[in-house]
Amino acid sequence: METKLRFAQQIVLKAGRWLREHMNQQVEITEKADFKDLVTNFDQSIQDQLSQDILQAYPLDAILGEESQEHISISKGCVWVLDPIDGTTNFIAQQTDFCILLAYFEQGVGQFALLYNVMADQLIWGGGEFPVFLNDWPLLGYQKGELKRSLLGLNAGLFASNAFGLARLANHCLGTRSYGSAGISFAYVLEGRLVAHASYLYPWDYAVAAILGPKLGYELLSLENGKPRFEGREYVLFLPSLLKDEITGYLDEWNYQ
Amino acid sequence: METKLRFAQQIVLKAGRWLREHMNQQVEITEKADFKDLVTNFDQSIQDQLSQDILQAYPLDAILGEESQEHISISKGCVWVLDPIDGTTNFIAQQTDFCILLAYFEQGVGQFALLYNVMADQLIWGGGEFPVFLNDWPLLGYQKGELKRSLLGLNAGLFASNAFGLARLANHCLGTRSYGSAGISFAYVLEGRLVAHASYLYPWDYAVAAILGPKLGYELLSLENGKPRFEGREYVLFLPSLLKDEITGYLDEWNYQ
Repeated sequence: METKLRFAQQIVLKAGRWLREHMNQQVEITEKADFKDLVTNFDQSIQDQLSQDILQAYPLDAILGEESQEHISISKGCVWVLDPIDGTTNFIAQQTDFCILLAYFEQGVGQFALLYNVMADQLIWGGGEFPVFLNDWPLLGYQKGELKRSLLGLNAGLFASNAFGLARLANHCLGTRSYGSAGISFAYVLEGRLVAHASYLYPWDYAVAAILGPKLGYELLSLENGKPRFEGREYVLFLPSLLKDEITGYLDEWNYQ
Repeated sequence: METKLRFAQQIVLKAGRWLREHMNQQVEITEKADFKDLVTNFDQSIQDQLSQDILQAYPLDAILGEESQEHISISKGCVWVLDPIDGTTNFIAQQTDFCILLAYFEQGVGQFALLYNVMADQLIWGGGEFPVFLNDWPLLGYQKGELKRSLLGLNAGLFASNAFGLARLANHCLGTRSYGSAGISFAYVLEGRLVAHASYLYPWDYAVAAILGPKLGYELLSLENGKPRFEGREYVLFLPSLLKDEITGYLDEWNYQ
């Protein structure tokens, strides 16, 4: 499995380098009005590059992503789950704060994941049988702290609607932050900058959190189904296992184990 | 004035270095429960250091800040406006994403300002008769773009309450972001990552934006009084002058010039 993980690191870093180089060139010559197309092209291009690399090295593996043509379940065989550009609105409006996300499953069991903050050149990698690193530094894992001294990753819309009681939870924290990328928000949780992050996500957005989290004392809950189903879009909450009872206690009708 | 600006750069960078060094040491040995006191101490310490430096070099100048004992108006004499740690909740919960803010006025006219993102070691400086730089790089100034392709700096509370119609404005943008520091949000506006930023702030939080903005095509409005009064807390909006009519058109009863 280590060979496969090293391979995954190489192709993700290569895709990130390509994105940084071509983005800077292209953004300069692209009219604002055409920027949406440019993003779509970059998204497709990274998806194609990574899929090609994976299928060339592992022709029997499957790839689940936004562009997947057929229905792919993570529960059977060897499946890569890919989000080529997570945080596309940041990509459009900021040209920074976006990620490449890649997770790898065998028979439904997460083997490793990679979360690459492209412009910061920060790669969080590991999970499964591997410890979790940020570039060359091992991450320490969750350090117990008080909820009321901690920040929650939550966008303004979810706070305003108080979906699932998330605004009530936010009001028991020090405040909310919104960074516009699931990957960056999960990374901040893993680094201890946010205590938890809630959002409405697809499997390719949250798969990395499901794999990286448990090695560092975190877990990913579905606010709709208890456990994420890896099918369609779901409201999910990434949080420290140690605070699970306290945090879910503030949510509406939370009755999953 | 250039001597005074160079002096200001030196003392702000020195304070930032001191903060980085002592913070790392102290944070490690401080129990979470005492962290609030630690922050208060750091806040006071940076305030003292910078005030001492300023008054030693310029004994007739005045300093306006959170800790100012007497009432100080920026409209008379030489006044420094100081926020030693902007973004204290980030300081508490993240140990990053906070700023030192320092602005300098003579007879009410902004001469220069410094906005220092301490952990990123990024200093935005200039204004008045000076161009605006990010470290050694001149900032380009506002590049016309569409509001609907741009992000607004706005916290979840202001969005949820739709104060002044800010949620309506947000809904005409690509989305909102919340970073927890006025300084960092203003910096992101000046760098073109956010189109505008609205918040409820004290003069020492917004003074730097009022001075740095006009050199780059931005201005600071008070949502309550049209122009910020530099007295007490106010709802303010930092935005590109070119989009002022469009943006204020979405707000409630905006009738200032």
